[in-house]
Amino acid sequence: MGVEVYLFDEVPKGSITKNALGGKGYGLVEMTQLDLPVPLGIVVTTRMCNDFFKNDKRIWPELKAAILKKVETLEKRVGKKFDDMDNPLLVSVRSGSPLSMPGMMDTVLNLGINDKITEALAKKTRDQRFAYDTYRRFIQLFGKIVMGIDGAKFDKILEQVKEEHGAKTDIEVKADGWKEVVKRYKALVKKEAGKDFPQDPIEQLLMAVGAVFNSWWNPRAAAYRKIYKIPDSLGTAVNIMMMVYGNFDDRSGTGVAFTRNPSTGEKELYGEFLMRAQGEDVVAGIRTPLPLNKLKGQLPEAYKELARIMGILEKHFRDMQDIEFTIEGGKLYMLQTRTGKRTAAAAVKIAIDMENEGMIKRQEAVLRVEPDQLQRLLYKQIDPKAKMTPIAKGLQASPGAAVGKVMFTVEEVQQAKEKGEKVILVRPETTPEDIAGIAASDGVLTSRGGMTSHAAVVTRGMGKPCIVGAEGISVSVEKRMFNVDGKQIRKGDTITIDGGSGLVYTGEMPLVEHGINAQVATILKWADGYRRLGVRANADTPTMAAKARENGATGIGLDRTERMFNAPERLALVQKMILADSMGERQKYLDLLKPHQKGDFVGIFKVMEGLPVTIRLLDMPLHEFLPKMEEILPQVVELRLAGKNKEDLREKERVLKRVMELREQNPMMGQRGVRLALVHAEIYRMQVSAIFEAAAELMRKGEKAPEIEIMISQVEGAEELRKAREIVEEEASKVMKAQGVKLNYKVGTMIETPRAALTGAEIAKYADFFSFGTNDLTQATFAFSRDDVEAKFIPFYIENKVLDSNPFETLDWNGVGRLVMMCAAEGKKANPKLKVGICGEHGGDPKSIEFFNTTELDYVSCSPYRVPVAKLAAAQAELRKSHAGSSSV
Amino acid sequence: MGVEVYLFDEVPKGSITKNALGGKGYGLVEMTQLDLPVPLGIVVTTRMCNDFFKNDKRIWPELKAAILKKVETLEKRVGKKFDDMDNPLLVSVRSGSPLSMPGMMDTVLNLGINDKITEALAKKTRDQRFAYDTYRRFIQLFGKIVMGIDGAKFDKILEQVKEEHGAKTDIEVKADGWKEVVKRYKALVKKEAGKDFPQDPIEQLLMAVGAVFNSWWNPRAAAYRKIYKIPDSLGTAVNIMMMVYGNFDDRSGTGVAFTRNPSTGEKELYGEFLMRAQGEDVVAGIRTPLPLNKLKGQLPEAYKELARIMGILEKHFRDMQDIEFTIEGGKLYMLQTRTGKRTAAAAVKIAIDMENEGMIKRQEAVLRVEPDQLQRLLYKQIDPKAKMTPIAKGLQASPGAAVGKVMFTVEEVQQAKEKGEKVILVRPETTPEDIAGIAASDGVLTSRGGMTSHAAVVTRGMGKPCIVGAEGISVSVEKRMFNVDGKQIRKGDTITIDGGSGLVYTGEMPLVEHGINAQVATILKWADGYRRLGVRANADTPTMAAKARENGATGIGLDRTERMFNAPERLALVQKMILADSMGERQKYLDLLKPHQKGDFVGIFKVMEGLPVTIRLLDMPLHEFLPKMEEILPQVVELRLAGKNKEDLREKERVLKRVMELREQNPMMGQRGVRLALVHAEIYRMQVSAIFEAAAELMRKGEKAPEIEIMISQVEGAEELRKAREIVEEEASKVMKAQGVKLNYKVGTMIETPRAALTGAEIAKYADFFSFGTNDLTQATFAFSRDDVEAKFIPFYIENKVLDSNPFETLDWNGVGRLVMMCAAEGKKANPKLKVGICGEHGGDPKSIEFFNTTELDYVSCSPYRVPVAKLAAAQAELRKSHAGSSSV
Repeated sequence: MGVEVYLFDEVPKGSITKNALGGKGYGLVEMTQLDLPVPLGIVVTTRMCNDFFKNDKRIWPELKAAILKKVETLEKRVGKKFDDMDNPLLVSVRSGSPLSMPGMMDTVLNLGINDKITEALAKKTRDQRFAYDTYRRFIQLFGKIVMGIDGAKFDKILEQVKEEHGAKTDIEVKADGWKEVVKRYKALVKKEAGKDFPQDPIEQLLMAVGAVFNSWWNPRAAAYRKIYKIPDSLGTAVNIMMMVYGNFDDRSGTGVAFTRNPSTGEKELYGEFLMRAQGEDVVAGIRTPLPLNKLKGQLPEAYKELARIMGILEKHFRDMQDIEFTIEGGKLYMLQTRTGKRTAAAAVKIAIDMENEGMIKRQEAVLRVEPDQLQRLLYKQIDPKAKMTPIAKGLQASPGAAVGKVMFTVEEVQQAKEKGEKVILVRPETTPEDIAGIAASDGVLTSRGGMTSHAAVVTRGMGKPCIVGAEGISVSVEKRMFNVDGKQIRKGDTITIDGGSGLVYTGEMPLVEHGINAQVATILKWADGYRRLGVRANADTPTMAAKARENGATGIGLDRTERMFNAPERLALVQKMILADSMGERQKYLDLLKPHQKGDFVGIFKVMEGLPVTIRLLDMPLHEFLPKMEEILPQVVELRLAGKNKEDLREKERVLKRVMELREQNPMMGQRGVRLALVHAEIYRMQVSAIFEAAAELMRKGEKAPEIEIMISQVEGAEELRKAREIVEEEASKVMKAQGVKLNYKVGTMIETPRAALTGAEIAKYADFFSFGTNDLTQATFAFSRDDVEAKFIPFYIENKVLDSNPFETLDWNGVGRLVMMCAAEGKKANPKLKVGICGEHGGDPKSIEFFNTTELDYVSCSPYRVPVAKLAAAQAELRKSHAGSSSV
Repeated sequence: MGVEVYLFDEVPKGSITKNALGGKGYGLVEMTQLDLPVPLGIVVTTRMCNDFFKNDKRIWPELKAAILKKVETLEKRVGKKFDDMDNPLLVSVRSGSPLSMPGMMDTVLNLGINDKITEALAKKTRDQRFAYDTYRRFIQLFGKIVMGIDGAKFDKILEQVKEEHGAKTDIEVKADGWKEVVKRYKALVKKEAGKDFPQDPIEQLLMAVGAVFNSWWNPRAAAYRKIYKIPDSLGTAVNIMMMVYGNFDDRSGTGVAFTRNPSTGEKELYGEFLMRAQGEDVVAGIRTPLPLNKLKGQLPEAYKELARIMGILEKHFRDMQDIEFTIEGGKLYMLQTRTGKRTAAAAVKIAIDMENEGMIKRQEAVLRVEPDQLQRLLYKQIDPKAKMTPIAKGLQASPGAAVGKVMFTVEEVQQAKEKGEKVILVRPETTPEDIAGIAASDGVLTSRGGMTSHAAVVTRGMGKPCIVGAEGISVSVEKRMFNVDGKQIRKGDTITIDGGSGLVYTGEMPLVEHGINAQVATILKWADGYRRLGVRANADTPTMAAKARENGATGIGLDRTERMFNAPERLALVQKMILADSMGERQKYLDLLKPHQKGDFVGIFKVMEGLPVTIRLLDMPLHEFLPKMEEILPQVVELRLAGKNKEDLREKERVLKRVMELREQNPMMGQRGVRLALVHAEIYRMQVSAIFEAAAELMRKGEKAPEIEIMISQVEGAEELRKAREIVEEEASKVMKAQGVKLNYKVGTMIETPRAALTGAEIAKYADFFSFGTNDLTQATFAFSRDDVEAKFIPFYIENKVLDSNPFETLDWNGVGRLVMMCAAEGKKANPKLKVGICGEHGGDPKSIEFFNTTELDYVSCSPYRVPVAKLAAAQAELRKSHAGSSSV
C-alpha cells in the first residue's frame, strides 16, 4: 500500500486502468505510452484520494515527498522549473474520476504563477496584458476553489475596476487594468484568508491537490453520484500537467476533434479549432471556430500529425475517439482522448464500418448500438437542430413526432383528412368511439390519462405519435380550443407533438426520419445471430400483424381481442349484448358478433402464415363497453327535467341502470378475464368458436394452418385455469368436429396477478404456456393503479428518488422481477414442456429484456414497432451474459 | 394382507380405530369390549372396501368364506339362525366411514326375512300385519338399494294397494293389504331384475355387503367427500348386527340420549324415548317421544342400567356421548355411541366441568371449545328454536342479531331513538355522513357494498349487527321503503337482521344473548396459559379501546385515524382542507383539525394506560372525503339548467371540479397512505404533532406514558418508509422538544402491497415493526377488489369450487400466506429486533390464526369483539402445534 504518484510514462502496466487513473488520466497515460505528444505530467491515483480522506483530509508526508520528487523529475525532463524566471513551469491540476462526472469537480490552470513569474512571463511573451490577465485568472480560480473565498467578491472587484477604467467588457481591459485587479485580488485574499496569496508554486501545488481531492465530496458531486449511482468509493485522480498555450503565437491554436463524423458516422476527421486561442475560448463561443479541414491550409504539418495520431488512437481504443489538442508554436500536443458520443445513425454506421474494417468483432458491433438509439431511428423525430420552447409536456405515450392542424372531433379529423391535411386530434381523453378519428389523424394529444389510457394503447398499436396526460393544457371540445399557460390554441392552428419526448410545440417544427435502412437491417441480422430470447409482437389486427412480420417478429405474443369488440361498427352490438335481459337475447348478439371476430382471425392467421399467434380471450370488464356514468347521468337528469321524450328517457334510464349495476369501485381488480369467463362462458365460447372456424376456413383454402395459442387472463389460481381450459377444449372440439379439421393448439395463461406468480407450480399443471402480463403484475405488486399514479405521483417519486425509474417502463427487478423468476422456475419445474414468455410493455424495454434474459423466459413480446429494439436488446443481453461468464468477447 | 372380518368382541386391539372400523363400528366394538350390552355383530373393515374395488367390485372367495364363518359363530352365540322357523336370525347391514358422512351411504334392516320367515314371525309375534309390513319394507329397501330398482315403482304399487283397500295412510293398511303389497313387490322385482326376490338369507347378506361397499362411490357420497375434503381412500366399513326390536312388546322401546345436556351442558342424563317403537319412529316424529327421565317410572331396571352405561361411556371416551339404545322385552341394548354435538354454552360448561372432574386435562378443555362457538356466545343471536323463513340474504358484515323499526335517514333514526324505539337503518349504502345514524341505530342493512364497505367497517368497529350487499332488496330512500321479492317494507315496519348469518326476517324474532360469563372467562384464562401469539385489538375510539381492554386485548394493533376525519363535526373542515386553493389555506384547516385529533388520542391513550397503541396515519385517498360524483354531478346539471342561484352553482362547480381532479379509476391502488403522505407531508405532520401533544398532556397530568407505535401504510419499498419515517421523526422531535417531554416510540409499516412483502429485508432496515395488512394484501395478491368481487363472484367461485373459502375471511395460505411467511422471516433476519404482527380481519379468524401461529408472527390484532375468539384460537393453535411435535396432550 505504497504511495501512488507517477509520471505519465512511468505508470506500471497494472495500474493503467480508468479505476486507478480516472478517465482523463487514463487517456493521457495511454497516449503517453503510445509515444504520442502529450505534455508531460504526473498522475496521483484515485486510491490516494481515498487515503487522503482516511488521513483526515491531509496530504501526508509520504504523499508530499512523492509529489515533490516527481515534480523534480518533471522539471528536469521538460527543462522548465517552478519559479524560474527564464523558463518557468506552469501546470494545470485537474480532477478525473473513473466515471464521467462532467463539471462536478474542480480544475486549476496556470498553477506556478506568482508576482515574480508574472513579470517574467510578461517579458518573455512581450505581453504584459496577457501576463497579468493570466495571473488574475489564477488568483481568482485558486482563491475561490482552493482557498474557499466567495467568488462574488472577485467578480465585484472586477466590475469596479472595469467601471473605473471605462471598460465595458473584459477585452477592453488593458494591462494596467489587470494589474490593478491583481493588486486588489491579493488584498481581498489577505483579508478573507488572513494570509498573503501563496507565492511558492510548491505550496500552491499541494494546496491545489488537496482541493481537488476535497472536491470529490463537494455537495454537487455527491448529489450527482447519488443520482447516477456512482459509488462514493471510486475517488478522483489528480492530473498535474505542464501547461501548453494555444494562444502563444500565430502558429498556435486549440481544438476538439472526432476520429469519425459523430453525426453521420462517415469515416473522416471531424472537428473544429481556433487559432491563437485556449481551450476555454472554443467552448465559450465568443469567436467562431473553423472546421478542422481548414487547419490543413494553416498548419499542414500539425494537421498531418493530428490525422496520424487520430488514426493511431482509434485503432488503439477500437472506437471513435473524441479528442482535445493544442498547438503551441506549431507543435501539436494531445490534451485528452475519450470515446466519442454519437448520433443514432452514426452509431449504426460506425459499428458496421468498424466490423467491416476488421477493427472490432461482430459481437462488439452489435453491442455498440444502444437500443434506444435504434428506436429513435425508427420514428420520425423533430430535427435535433431545431430550437424551440415547448408549450406543454405530457406522458410519452407513443413515440414519433407529428405536425398537424388541431382538430377536436372525429368528424373534423375525417373532413380535414379528405382535404389532404395533416391533423392532430386533441381531446381531454379518448374512448372507443374516437377510434376512427385516431386512425385518420397523424397524432393524438390528450390532457388526461396515463400510459395505459385508451389513446395511449391504441396509438402505440398503430405506431402513431401520441402524448397523453398533458396536464398543463385544458381542452374545451365545445369551444373547439385548448388553453395552455393563458395561450389559446384553436381548431385549425398548427402544432407539433413529439411522442418520444412528450413535448408539444406551436407551429410546424422540421421533422427528420430514418426508418429501417440497410444499415439498421445489417445490425439486426447480426443481432439475430446472438439472441437467445424469441421476439414476438403484440398485434390485434392484420395490419399490425403485417407490421410485426415486417419488423421481424417470430410470432404474435399477444392478440388482444378487445379491439374486436371496440371497432365502431361492432360496439353497438356489444352494448346490446351487455344490455340483454335474457340469455337468449344475449346469445343473439353474440351470434351476430361472431362473423366479425372470425373475419379478424382469418386476417391475422393469413398474415402470420403458420407462425404462432397467442390470442387472449376477452379481458376487459363489460362496463367498459358501456357509456361512462358521467356521460349518461347528466343526460338522464336533463331528460327527466325536460319531461318530454319519454321513450328516450326510458332507454337512457335502462342504460344508466345497467351502468350502475356493472359499475366497479376498482375495475382493474374486478370482474375481468377469467372471472368474467367462468360466469359468462357464452362469450368465451363465441370467441373460441370464431378462432377455430377461422382456422378451418383457411385450411380449406389450402393456407397454412395457424399455430393457435389461446390465453386466459387474470387467473389467480390453478382451478380457474382448469375450468377455463375445459370451456376452451369443449368448444374447440365441437368446432373441429363440425368443420372436419384437426388442429394442434395450446392453452395457456397470463401470469399477471401476484397470486398466480406465487402458485405457478400448481397452475403449470393446466397450462401449455405462461405469458407474464407485467403491466398488470406491476400494478398489483406495487398496488399502483397505472392510470392513477403514472401522471400523478410517479414523476414526483422519481424526482424525489423514491423510485429509480417508472416501474411500468422498466421492470422492477426486486419485487416484480422476483415474482417472475420464482414463477418461471417453479412453473418449468412442475411442467418441463411449459413455454414461458412476457407480453407486458416491458417486453420492448432493453433494461427489462436484460432481466428477462437472465431468467427462464423463452420469449418476449412487444409492440410491432419495438420489435427491432427488442431483438437488439436481447442479443446484447445474451452477449453480456456470456461475456460475464468468459472473456472471449 | 389377510381378510379382516371380526366379531365385535374379537377385533384385535390394533384394529380398534375409527380408520379401520368406521365411526359406527368403532363405537360398537368399544362398547362390546367394555362388556356393555351390544347386540352381537360382525364388522368388515374399511380395508375390505378398498380391496373390493380392487377386485372389480366383487366379494372374492376369501372374503365370502370369512363372512360365512363369522355368521356361523354369530348364530351359535346368539342362539338364532338364518332361515330358522323357530328362532330366525335377522340382521341389519350398515355402512360406517371413519369420518361422519350422515345419510350418504346405505343401510339395510331386517335382512334374513323371506316368505317362510315372515310366516314364522307372524306366528311368533302373533301379529301378521307386523310380519308382512316388515317383509314388504325389506323388499322395498333391498330392491331399491341392493338390486337397483327404481324406488318410485315400489311407491306406486303401495299407493295403488292403499287405494284399493281404502286406506289413506300406511297405518290404516291391514295385514291382507301388506300381504298384497308383498305379492306385487315380488312380481315387480322379478320383472325388473329378471329373477325372483332372493329367499336365501346368505345370498341376501352377500348382496347387501356388496351394495354397502358400492355406496361408497354413489354420486352423492363422492360429491360429499369432495366438498368436505374427505379422502376417497378411506372406504367404508360394514356392520352386520343382530336385529333387536323396540316394538317387540310392552316392555320394549327405543331412544336417543346424551350423557350431559347438549343444550346447557348440565351434568344430567338427557334424551327421549318411545315405548313399543323402532328407531325410525323416533326420528319420523309421528309419535311424540317422552323425556328420558320418564323411562325411570316405566322401566326402572332398564333406566338404571342405561344410566350406569352412560357413565361408563363418558368416562371411557372422555367426552359427552350421544347414544342410541333399544329395549327389547325389558333388556337394554346399545346401538350406537359417538361424541355428541352441543351448543356453544354447553361446550364451554362441559369442558370446564370435565376439567374440574379430573376427566380431561386443562389443555384438552381449551381445545374442546370451538372458537366459532365462543364467538356466538358473545353476540345476541336469534333464538335457535325460532323457525322463520328469511326474506333476504346479504353479506355477514358484522355479527349479532337486532330487531327494530325500519328507518331510512339519520334524522328518522335519531327521532325514533329519542322515543326509545329500536331501529334498523336501511340504506342502499352508507357514507361518512350517515355515521350519526349508524351510531344511533340498533343495526344496519344495506343493499350494496362488500365486507369493507363503509357500513361494514364502521359497524364492526362498533360491534353493531350489520348486513351489507343484500342484493335481493331494492331500497328507495325517497319513497321510504324497500322492495324484496315483490313485497314492500315501509318506514316503521319491524324487521330482524342477523349479522352472523346475513339473513333478514320480517317482524320480531326472539333473540338470546350470553356475553362473557364466568365460564367463558375461565376458558379464556386457561387459554392465556397456552398462547404464544399476542392478541391486540383494532380500535379507533376510546369506546372501542375500552371494549378491547374489557375483552382482554394486550394493546391496540390498529388505530385507523380516518375515523378522526370522518366524524360529522369534522368532515366539513376536512372537505375545506381538501378544497383549499393554497398551502396557507390548507394549513389553516389542518390547524383547526388538530385539537380534535389530539383529543381523540388523549382519550385512547388514557384508556390504554401505557399499553402499546399502533396508530396508522391517514390512509384513505382524499377524494373519499368529498361527495361522490354521482351526487354532485346531477346537482350541478340541475342548477345549470335552472339558471338561478349562481353562487350555489359556482360553489358546487368548484367541488365538482376538485372531485373530478382527485377522482381515481382504481382508488384502492391510488394515492393513499404513504403516497399521500410524501406529497402532502403537512397532513402527516399534523397527525404526528397531535399524537405527541396528546402524550405530553397526559404525562403532565401524571398519567402513564403511552407506548406509541406509528404506522405507515401502503408502502411498496424501503425508500418510501425511510422518507416517511424522517417526517415522523422530525415532527416528533419538534413536539417533544417544545413540550419538554421524552418518549420512546416506534415507527413501523403495514405490509399490505405484494412488493412490500417481497422486499421485506430492505424495508426492515427502517422499520421497528411490520404489521401485515392482510385485507389489502389479499386484494392485491388476488387482484380482487373486495368491494367488487365479494358480493359478485366470490359466492359463485365458492359454489363452483374455484375457491375453498372466501380469502377475505380465511387467509389464503398458498398465495398470501407464502408472502407473509417470506416477509416475516426475511424481515426478522434483516432486523432481529423487528416485531411482526397482523392487523387485517384475518387476525380474528381461527383458521388464519392457526397459520399465523406457524409463522414468525408475534401478535394478531382484530376487532375488539373478536379478541376472546382470537385468544382461544391462538391457544388452540399453539397446543395443536406442540401436540404435532409430541404426544403429551
